[in-house]
Amino acid sequence: MRTLITGGTVLSSTGASAADVLVDGERIAAVAAPGVFDPDAADTVLAAAGKYVLPGGVDAHTHMEMPFGGTVVSDTFATGTTAAAWGGTTTIIDFAKQEKGTSLLATLDEWHRKADGNCAVDYAFHMIVSDVNDTTLKEMSTCAGAGVNSFKMFMAYPGALYSTDGEILRAMDKATEIGATIMMHAENGIAIDELAARAIAEGRREPAQHGLTRPPELEGEATHRAIMLAKVTGAPLYIVHLSAAQALAAVAEARDTGQNVFAETCPQYLYLSLDDMMAPGFEGAKYVASPPLRDRSHQTDLWRGLRTNDLSVVSTDHCPFCLKDQKELGRDDFRDIPNGMPGVEHRMDLLHQGVVSGEISLARWVEITSTTPALMFGLYPRKGVIAPGSDADIVIYDPTARQTLSAATHHMNVDYSAYEGFEVTGRVETVLSRGRVVLSGGTFSGRVGHGTFLSRDRCQYLR
Amino acid sequence: MRTLITGGTVLSSTGASAADVLVDGERIAAVAAPGVFDPDAADTVLAAAGKYVLPGGVDAHTHMEMPFGGTVVSDTFATGTTAAAWGGTTTIIDFAKQEKGTSLLATLDEWHRKADGNCAVDYAFHMIVSDVNDTTLKEMSTCAGAGVNSFKMFMAYPGALYSTDGEILRAMDKATEIGATIMMHAENGIAIDELAARAIAEGRREPAQHGLTRPPELEGEATHRAIMLAKVTGAPLYIVHLSAAQALAAVAEARDTGQNVFAETCPQYLYLSLDDMMAPGFEGAKYVASPPLRDRSHQTDLWRGLRTNDLSVVSTDHCPFCLKDQKELGRDDFRDIPNGMPGVEHRMDLLHQGVVSGEISLARWVEITSTTPALMFGLYPRKGVIAPGSDADIVIYDPTARQTLSAATHHMNVDYSAYEGFEVTGRVETVLSRGRVVLSGGTFSGRVGHGTFLSRDRCQYLR
Amino acid sequence: MRTLITGGTVLSSTGASAADVLVDGERIAAVAAPGVFDPDAADTVLAAAGKYVLPGGVDAHTHMEMPFGGTVVSDTFATGTTAAAWGGTTTIIDFAKQEKGTSLLATLDEWHRKADGNCAVDYAFHMIVSDVNDTTLKEMSTCAGAGVNSFKMFMAYPGALYSTDGEILRAMDKATEIGATIMMHAENGIAIDELAARAIAEGRREPAQHGLTRPPELEGEATHRAIMLAKVTGAPLYIVHLSAAQALAAVAEARDTGQNVFAETCPQYLYLSLDDMMAPGFEGAKYVASPPLRDRSHQTDLWRGLRTNDLSVVSTDHCPFCLKDQKELGRDDFRDIPNGMPGVEHRMDLLHQGVVSGEISLARWVEITSTTPALMFGLYPRKGVIAPGSDADIVIYDPTARQTLSAATHHMNVDYSAYEGFEVTGRVETVLSRGRVVLSGGTFSGRVGHGTFLSRDRCQYLR
Amino acid sequence: MRTLITGGTVLSSTGASAADVLVDGERIAAVAAPGVFDPDAADTVLAAAGKYVLPGGVDAHTHMEMPFGGTVVSDTFATGTTAAAWGGTTTIIDFAKQEKGTSLLATLDEWHRKADGNCAVDYAFHMIVSDVNDTTLKEMSTCAGAGVNSFKMFMAYPGALYSTDGEILRAMDKATEIGATIMMHAENGIAIDELAARAIAEGRREPAQHGLTRPPELEGEATHRAIMLAKVTGAPLYIVHLSAAQALAAVAEARDTGQNVFAETCPQYLYLSLDDMMAPGFEGAKYVASPPLRDRSHQTDLWRGLRTNDLSVVSTDHCPFCLKDQKELGRDDFRDIPNGMPGVEHRMDLLHQGVVSGEISLARWVEITSTTPALMFGLYPRKGVIAPGSDADIVIYDPTARQTLSAATHHMNVDYSAYEGFEVTGRVETVLSRGRVVLSGGTFSGRVGHGTFLSRDRCQYLR
Repeated sequence: MRTLITGGTVLSSTGASAADVLVDGERIAAVAAPGVFDPDAADTVLAAAGKYVLPGGVDAHTHMEMPFGGTVVSDTFATGTTAAAWGGTTTIIDFAKQEKGTSLLATLDEWHRKADGNCAVDYAFHMIVSDVNDTTLKEMSTCAGAGVNSFKMFMAYPGALYSTDGEILRAMDKATEIGATIMMHAENGIAIDELAARAIAEGRREPAQHGLTRPPELEGEATHRAIMLAKVTGAPLYIVHLSAAQALAAVAEARDTGQNVFAETCPQYLYLSLDDMMAPGFEGAKYVASPPLRDRSHQTDLWRGLRTNDLSVVSTDHCPFCLKDQKELGRDDFRDIPNGMPGVEHRMDLLHQGVVSGEISLARWVEITSTTPALMFGLYPRKGVIAPGSDADIVIYDPTARQTLSAATHHMNVDYSAYEGFEVTGRVETVLSRGRVVLSGGTFSGRVGHGTFLSRDRCQYLR
Repeated sequence: MRTLITGGTVLSSTGASAADVLVDGERIAAVAAPGVFDPDAADTVLAAAGKYVLPGGVDAHTHMEMPFGGTVVSDTFATGTTAAAWGGTTTIIDFAKQEKGTSLLATLDEWHRKADGNCAVDYAFHMIVSDVNDTTLKEMSTCAGAGVNSFKMFMAYPGALYSTDGEILRAMDKATEIGATIMMHAENGIAIDELAARAIAEGRREPAQHGLTRPPELEGEATHRAIMLAKVTGAPLYIVHLSAAQALAAVAEARDTGQNVFAETCPQYLYLSLDDMMAPGFEGAKYVASPPLRDRSHQTDLWRGLRTNDLSVVSTDHCPFCLKDQKELGRDDFRDIPNGMPGVEHRMDLLHQGVVSGEISLARWVEITSTTPALMFGLYPRKGVIAPGSDADIVIYDPTARQTLSAATHHMNVDYSAYEGFEVTGRVETVLSRGRVVLSGGTFSGRVGHGTFLSRDRCQYLR
Repeated sequence: MRTLITGGTVLSSTGASAADVLVDGERIAAVAAPGVFDPDAADTVLAAAGKYVLPGGVDAHTHMEMPFGGTVVSDTFATGTTAAAWGGTTTIIDFAKQEKGTSLLATLDEWHRKADGNCAVDYAFHMIVSDVNDTTLKEMSTCAGAGVNSFKMFMAYPGALYSTDGEILRAMDKATEIGATIMMHAENGIAIDELAARAIAEGRREPAQHGLTRPPELEGEATHRAIMLAKVTGAPLYIVHLSAAQALAAVAEARDTGQNVFAETCPQYLYLSLDDMMAPGFEGAKYVASPPLRDRSHQTDLWRGLRTNDLSVVSTDHCPFCLKDQKELGRDDFRDIPNGMPGVEHRMDLLHQGVVSGEISLARWVEITSTTPALMFGLYPRKGVIAPGSDADIVIYDPTARQTLSAATHHMNVDYSAYEGFEVTGRVETVLSRGRVVLSGGTFSGRVGHGTFLSRDRCQYLR
Repeated sequence: MRTLITGGTVLSSTGASAADVLVDGERIAAVAAPGVFDPDAADTVLAAAGKYVLPGGVDAHTHMEMPFGGTVVSDTFATGTTAAAWGGTTTIIDFAKQEKGTSLLATLDEWHRKADGNCAVDYAFHMIVSDVNDTTLKEMSTCAGAGVNSFKMFMAYPGALYSTDGEILRAMDKATEIGATIMMHAENGIAIDELAARAIAEGRREPAQHGLTRPPELEGEATHRAIMLAKVTGAPLYIVHLSAAQALAAVAEARDTGQNVFAETCPQYLYLSLDDMMAPGFEGAKYVASPPLRDRSHQTDLWRGLRTNDLSVVSTDHCPFCLKDQKELGRDDFRDIPNGMPGVEHRMDLLHQGVVSGEISLARWVEITSTTPALMFGLYPRKGVIAPGSDADIVIYDPTARQTLSAATHHMNVDYSAYEGFEVTGRVETVLSRGRVVLSGGTFSGRVGHGTFLSRDRCQYLR
């Protein structure tokens, strides 16, 4: 089964070439100058004139079917990965979440059970470590051997996912030993809980308080602390969903010294702000996620960080809860609003807007949405690049089409869109996942169950 | 004429793939999984099993046939580009040097005359602006239109190449207007000349004084100043031959703010030091270049800078003068030693040592020696990448071969090697320039005259 | 009762003047040019020709009679303040230490009981807050009204004095409200305990491990964190016993922004180092204090910090435990060695060595040992200056005398000296406490019970 | 002749004491608690109840009778020092200005001739070095021996006062050798002249262009450069009239490293802004000085710098030119407007406003206007403090009086006020200069000729 994509502009993290792409089975067989391959010899020809041909998106931060705060994320692996495919993302790295008192391996098994046979695109796992003990630490090695060698910890959410600095230190030591990456939710949850309790005590209960009780200084602080713990232990560190200028400054300073510190941001921090949380009534609940949306001025810093590579990746932190029944759990107390926002479907489009508006270059778009996440999490060159031997995860993108984002048309299983009414330029036209066309011309032709588990190596930025 | 390179590991700035490369005429026709192309259908097959296949090196900083200090650089375009080919560099960007009182266009014509028909590999030009006036400024536009849109200025060498801050400001304004890059030799030459005069007045006349009278603070200062002038004008700035930690710090600080500031270093600053200049007798003259070799501690910072991308490129500043008759001009006064060192032949090998020693990754080796200089100076994707449609400038590199650098065996036209006796791992085995094998198995099969002039676009890192 | 000090060089924090000082009763009546007052009209004349006449030292950090780690500090208020007097320190600010489950007011009462009638020189209190709750927070106001408006908290010593970041936030909010200063022991105790537990698990049990398990990065981290919490709340922050370059950098950065952040260091960090802790056998236990002694390179930074005023005060953190029976508690496990070192007697002499060696000026000596601590803790101009109306706490200092520090000759109630054998230039000759000569010519003429409690105002550096 | 000042609040750079001050002849005889001295025994009694008694102001930066730009500063030593007295400034340090081709010693002689017998208060000199050569360098030693050991240089004003970096280096080397301070006008004049020429070429000729062609980055740049040259040579450096946040940042960074770098700002930069230069017609000419007034945002930074001591001194840069006939020279070309503003009379009042508005403390007011300039330029304790033996330069200040600044009422010989209509709280009531009442109750009782030359020592902040 040979597919030839002809006439397009093939994009990479360094630039663009006019080239045809030959797919043979699940893999890319060749990238060639137009004319090298005879279209007639292909089983399928996809005409891509005037279109971009780019490696499928790699979303390094999603939460599917995850229990959180007394409810469960509204997207299953089936619905979530299907939405991903609609949006040009052909790989997700989802977080298996250890509950306190359970083992990492049992957690991993559970996540395999959830995902196996239920994904429309390929998937891999990070592991959330919420219970650091001798067993857990040993299991980290086993996980790494099983293709899961990045471990997320939380400086936020005391009483739940929170780890102490001592626990972080232990896990980091183990990570250093086994060549794994520690991913950090860097907010000072202990201090934040105090601010939140005070808000409640003072009768401030509405959604916006979620943002106001999590000041950016406390993200900056925790980021700096995580960096120092990483320095003491030698562990590679990846800051997830960085949202604040203060945190960016801490990352930039560490990176200038050559420390193995990396960071991602998310589209919501680039496009939305505290203003959205101030919406009247309970509307602000749509935007409750942690870290919170920030004052608009931070957006400028984050775009700059994407250009300077102090922010290396854009992931979604896709973690959808419906407004009805789910977000509403916190109608009387913002602390009870499940934390998270939907987004897996819109990342490629939203970042393409950065190209349109001149914030980033076309090559950088590919780099931060695909190539770098693949390298960062040991998936390259299987993912993240259009090259012979790589998986044929390919997006044909129409850079001039216009569309309007809306809950009415999106495919995520959630009853609102954080970007309702956003008009964007550019649209995913065709998506191949491991050689198979899963989306084309507005029709999903993929299959839940097509997606396979990806065993990952260590971060490829480590020498 | 089709050439197939089979069985190698194809390198890019992001990683490696097992792939064959098909060359058709002067261009790369395809990169394909092994087996896609039948070797029998190729005119020539180059077996590359166990070898790296990488884009030919782009040396963004050479001086061929350049008059300097009463003598002329010892390499002609013929000898220099041949040596480059031996070393796996298939593109040089040489500096056309305006003399005071002459025009840029006349200078460009002269450099075309020197190079035309005399190069073994492709070449492009930067322009040295040493006489800023209304005519020159207008000619900058003409040069840019003629494919030369990077302009080097000197904060060193008062009375010769030196430009005042006012002249720099004028040229930067013009560069901003036309989208050109200002390249800067950033040393405070006015202050340095004072220190040098004092050394002579005190009887300190030996080569090492060249280094001792050019303290790193004065490179840091000038770098900072150039950055501020660029900020005031909006001009893109590229710091050439950065050698000092202080200058690196200034560049890193500017880059953190997102300013369009870039920098290169050179192999000599990574491997040699002030100690070499202290050699007994007149031996130190071999290492007289500006900026000077630094205290060994700076090397650590420079390698780190290469990893953090605060240093984006490694060029050679190839500027050879024979010890005999040339360097000797300064036997009685270090100020009369022609400034410069040979190096165009050894850049790829010396930087590969950085891979061997673990300072940089394999992908980073390709990036700093080929991909980034191509992007930085508007040559990508014609140069700097192995991709369909790109020029077939390809190096087959044996990563395990051992060799010893020596003037006895090098091909540069200069009577000493700055790296005499250095043992290195890795060796260029085969070199293609625009599809033609110019070096193979220790035999030069290229031709002086094969190299063509490359018209360049603006820096591709600008949005 | 009038005392005239004649012929001396009167020192202040800005310089020196040749002047006589007239004391009338407990206060300074006048500072006058020589000859203005007739010696015959004075009851007592103290000749000070060739001597410095300076304000009595203010040691802002002592621990007398404090229970710690299952034992009690070996100096009582009686012995400790007598030793202070011997060393030219006429005011101590001691830490009343709240035990978990007790109230601040009860603690304050207890400390008053301990000190009342038992001090040879004047004394004031800071309050250690180790149990943050609604009652405690209310009591902070009461304490402030009772002249104790600085509150120390611990980021070290989990399970004992440790406060969480949330508790710190609450206390800081209260401090902001009442204009009090938060004093911080800034070490990440949670992470340190993990490192210490690992050392024990690996059989590393000797005193030097105390230092090796408390890396300077973890002091830098905690200092940065305290500064961020202070920024969020607006509280004035005073970092106690700063020992590490990393912490100094955090303080300097905050001070550059104008935040109300202050820091002290101690003589032990200026003169002793990790090398001392490496002494054979159990000798290293003498130097076990927290933060620990650092690598010698930090001393250079601390002296510079004293010059730049990023370090504003030198206190002793006097906290003596005898080697016998006390330090020995940790013979089998360094974690059981009581933390602390003696020093209240030697601060003025040791810092005068900084004048002798050229590290600081004479005026700066007075400033960091007397004037600034008085201003910092609301005692100025009662203490910290020789001026009319100020308490007649005066030291006559012989700058040329030589002495050797030794446990054999010191007056602190502890069986070793951390400075055994140190030869120093300069010696306290005469000491007046509120007008009374308490030390003269090597004889203590003071009286336990002479010292009175000093009610303090807010920090006088706040606008 | 004994004068007793009774009942006031005596201020110092550290605080305040209720005290009487006894003056005997030209010197302060004693500072005493109220009641120590019998008023009846004094020849004169000055009642100061409710008033501040502070050391007379030291204005470290004035230009009297100085030729500049084809005209001469409008204040003579007689009128200028009289105005100073009116404003509570009892010491000025004026700049003797070397013309190119003349000697420093001849210049010093000339300035002595101008000032001798013509000053109402005491005066000292700095030396402007505008012609660096072997003779000049030798004369620097002679000047230092003659009590003038601070030397101002200009990075601005090419073709006039400008020195090259090489000349600066030479002078700095000499300064290091003789323990003198280099004072720097830090603006990149070469670049500024280019911007100014362009403005004229484009028809932008009005006064505001003076500000717009001198961007703050070019002050920041020059400040950084001066600091680097000082670092290379070891010279103490004092940045005059710092106006821009960028320059302040450079100073703060250097000071954090402990380098001997100091800076002053001036009242005009604290209270006026670029907006004032935008006044319609030619009004903006009143505010033409260099560096120029800045955007209002810089004021916040400068006040913070005064609090952090990165700015240690406030001087006036008093350099008055009448609007009529003088400023008007530049009616057609802003470059011909004489650079400078009047201010010597209002410094103490304007800075007292900083106390009133809460920007600085009372002690800091005294420190930055009197104590620190005295220490900085080797006049302490003769000037800058109220202490026995010090010159009886004393100001009795009414902190509650209200006044309105105006050319109609000021005593400077200039036809406009830069602060016309400013309402300020606080007023100088009585001024003593070396024991003599020169101003009292709105009447000048001093005498031109009373002021004497002050021979100065080296900077007292150097160890």
